[in-house]
Amino acid sequence: MEWKPTKESYQTYHTQIVNWFTERIACGDFPIGMKCPSQRALAVQFDVNRSTINTAMEELKANGLLETAVGSGTFIAQNPWPYLLSQPKWQQQINASIHKPNIETIQLINDYEQRQDMIRLGTGELALELLPTQALENSLKNITLSPQAIGYSEPQGNQELRENLCIHLKKRGIETTADNILIISGALQAFQLTAVGLLEPGSFVFQQKASYLNSIHPFQSAGMHLYGVDNPSNLHDTLAKLKRNRHGLFYAIPTLENPTGRIWTEKEKRDVYDICSKLSIPILEDDVYGELLFDEAKSRPIKTLDQTGQVLYVGSVSKTISPGLRIGWIVGPKTVIRRLADIKMQTDYGSSAISQAILTHWLTTGLYEKSLVTLRQQLKIRADFLEQLLVKYFHHIATWTSPKGGFYIWLKFSEPVITKALFTTMLEQKIIIHPGYVYQPNDFHHLRLSYAYATFEQMEIGIQKLASMLTI
Amino acid sequence: MEWKPTKESYQTYHTQIVNWFTERIACGDFPIGMKCPSQRALAVQFDVNRSTINTAMEELKANGLLETAVGSGTFIAQNPWPYLLSQPKWQQQINASIHKPNIETIQLINDYEQRQDMIRLGTGELALELLPTQALENSLKNITLSPQAIGYSEPQGNQELRENLCIHLKKRGIETTADNILIISGALQAFQLTAVGLLEPGSFVFQQKASYLNSIHPFQSAGMHLYGVDNPSNLHDTLAKLKRNRHGLFYAIPTLENPTGRIWTEKEKRDVYDICSKLSIPILEDDVYGELLFDEAKSRPIKTLDQTGQVLYVGSVSKTISPGLRIGWIVGPKTVIRRLADIKMQTDYGSSAISQAILTHWLTTGLYEKSLVTLRQQLKIRADFLEQLLVKYFHHIATWTSPKGGFYIWLKFSEPVITKALFTTMLEQKIIIHPGYVYQPNDFHHLRLSYAYATFEQMEIGIQKLASMLTI
Repeated sequence: MEWKPTKESYQTYHTQIVNWFTERIACGDFPIGMKCPSQRALAVQFDVNRSTINTAMEELKANGLLETAVGSGTFIAQNPWPYLLSQPKWQQQINASIHKPNIETIQLINDYEQRQDMIRLGTGELALELLPTQALENSLKNITLSPQAIGYSEPQGNQELRENLCIHLKKRGIETTADNILIISGALQAFQLTAVGLLEPGSFVFQQKASYLNSIHPFQSAGMHLYGVDNPSNLHDTLAKLKRNRHGLFYAIPTLENPTGRIWTEKEKRDVYDICSKLSIPILEDDVYGELLFDEAKSRPIKTLDQTGQVLYVGSVSKTISPGLRIGWIVGPKTVIRRLADIKMQTDYGSSAISQAILTHWLTTGLYEKSLVTLRQQLKIRADFLEQLLVKYFHHIATWTSPKGGFYIWLKFSEPVITKALFTTMLEQKIIIHPGYVYQPNDFHHLRLSYAYATFEQMEIGIQKLASMLTI
Repeated sequence: MEWKPTKESYQTYHTQIVNWFTERIACGDFPIGMKCPSQRALAVQFDVNRSTINTAMEELKANGLLETAVGSGTFIAQNPWPYLLSQPKWQQQINASIHKPNIETIQLINDYEQRQDMIRLGTGELALELLPTQALENSLKNITLSPQAIGYSEPQGNQELRENLCIHLKKRGIETTADNILIISGALQAFQLTAVGLLEPGSFVFQQKASYLNSIHPFQSAGMHLYGVDNPSNLHDTLAKLKRNRHGLFYAIPTLENPTGRIWTEKEKRDVYDICSKLSIPILEDDVYGELLFDEAKSRPIKTLDQTGQVLYVGSVSKTISPGLRIGWIVGPKTVIRRLADIKMQTDYGSSAISQAILTHWLTTGLYEKSLVTLRQQLKIRADFLEQLLVKYFHHIATWTSPKGGFYIWLKFSEPVITKALFTTMLEQKIIIHPGYVYQPNDFHHLRLSYAYATFEQMEIGIQKLASMLTI
């Protein structure tokens, strides 16, 4: 406890001490029931005289934060929050919903990714140097705002933006109208809105076995169960087994799947669409990587097959411009879009009008398309570089598919070497990897590598280090 | 059905017809089981030949949207959504949570507020001419962005913004640190985060009898019960009755309460704080109108009394700059702020980085303070004008308190004349009023008037019309 009250503060010594204690208790540093040091000890420690400590202690008692047990000293009492925090509904659901080792690894990843000195080999974000920061800043000078635009938003989001998205979405083969679009604060919000707005607790969310959803928890937190499907084309047999639990939805990333980077075949898309239509299972199609195909022609969304509003299509600019804009969209039947819009209005009253104005500007001026072209080129160069490293270090012990776009290579080792132990050892070497078991329970063969985040030098160091760790 | 397929479209006639039908069905215009007009009738109606209609019908059947019952014609079949939408969990909760007449009036208000030709006497928004649109647009030219700022946000929001908020909050008498602040997407999000993050379904949200919360439903939607308290100082007796259900929180707008515009006395604030502390009931203090006090000195937040992290303090710029920024904040104990930040990250990955950069700019350059001064002056002028009208038209039949700031006058009539019938008659006159029963069940004496939205002329017309309707 190196803290001391200071003369610099506008507060008296004893108030500083009261606040410091209060904070330690509120943030759990001093657990309920902990015995306090003696007033003499504290006086020495804080370098104040005992009367100050005494005043502070009396105030803390008066505030109900300390209590004295006769003869045995002073202890940390209840504070108003524990009974609330002792029922962490949300957290419990998350914990209950996935394997402990998983969540521990994910938490370690999240914690260590906050540190500047780590090499991040698996991070699903654009490197800072890939963000169009300057272009974005410059574009702000050309944004015009209307009072209507900066007032309370229309439930489905800015009309002009939605109309321009209709034009933009044609590039992905999607024909829709502004009324079928809901602007959301990033793709993640689509999960939350769908979970509370369309699904009941207990319903199933079907997905590929190795899936991004296993590493985040919007559906589990709302009480849904994830169900991994080996192969979308086998969906029918799988669902036959679950007849009574068929309610739910199929979550798919058919273009540049996360973590596998895979692109579904046209047959797989058609099969999933047909089977889901037959069984009345809506499809939630996540296309956030779709615009990052190195060859754009290569894969069209399932949504392009959709005649009956079977598919809710989700896109976002978080992977293409910047996550900081917090803008994404859902395309679906009006009746569903209106319901999700209602819920969004009850959750956050719509997305930032400024962010919406910026995206409208980027779409209408061609800035968006222009920056996409550059980004794809840069990602391709990074992908080639990473692949060269894989050839050099892993050709004999691992296999992979050359990336067709997006951020990831799903590296498969011939032996189950990607263990929790390896993850930890790498962490000690200041290298963060994303093990397969984070996306698929008990998968110790795979590794999600991202060429979007680390620098070339970091990729080289990281891959080299990884190779030296593996004794296959 | 005035729609016809058009030559202009890139689609064939029969595809246009298929899509039109599909849309009508998806958006519920054509309910399940509805009988279709004959092909002959449709051919006439769409001005195409029968073979086109036939092709379209066949495709719609193939898509499972139409089915033919031998001998009795063609009908609208199932689509994938009804079974989802037949369980509108969210909507059910809302409906269950408040009185039908209430929700119907609120829905009518929301619907009619979308129309341009209405006079809005109760709207809780700034008039478009009061929004600092030009200043906001100009300020965009001076915003500088960093790659860090536009990447994925820190869980609690932009550090620089939080530090500047600490300085800003001192003006309201609040001393806090950046670690105790969570940036949110408007004050409404504080309700949602608190509901799912801190409360259990079934717990109580205590509030003033006449309350804003009765007109919106973030807590009810999450399964909490609202409990109206007559007088904050009587809270203790009230809670005594509910001992076993004491878990929950106290929602308060002590400064410029919505709808009453009331400012709590220092004693009331102190009483509520003391009683809630004693009973371990956290206080959620909503101070979104606090900066709109005509005389700023007049009322300090309960948060300024807070020694133990008993109070979660909520602010926002939606009433002071623009709702379009979608930026607000929660101030509380670190342990609670961290939990709410977790949930926010799982909900929307943080608020718009651009909006956060703009607010930081407005705070650091003094733009915010400057625009507040102007806004307060304009609101004061409007308040005086509305009050003159009340004197002129209602002095003999109603009472009110002169507004001390904010948006509202809570007009009390000597007789229970503010009925659903009056509300409807006024609607027919293109005037939207906010009756007291929207905020307090069976209150037919009150009216929430807002001087923030309507023009001077509209206020005059509206109040005059209202007076002519009342036969007291």
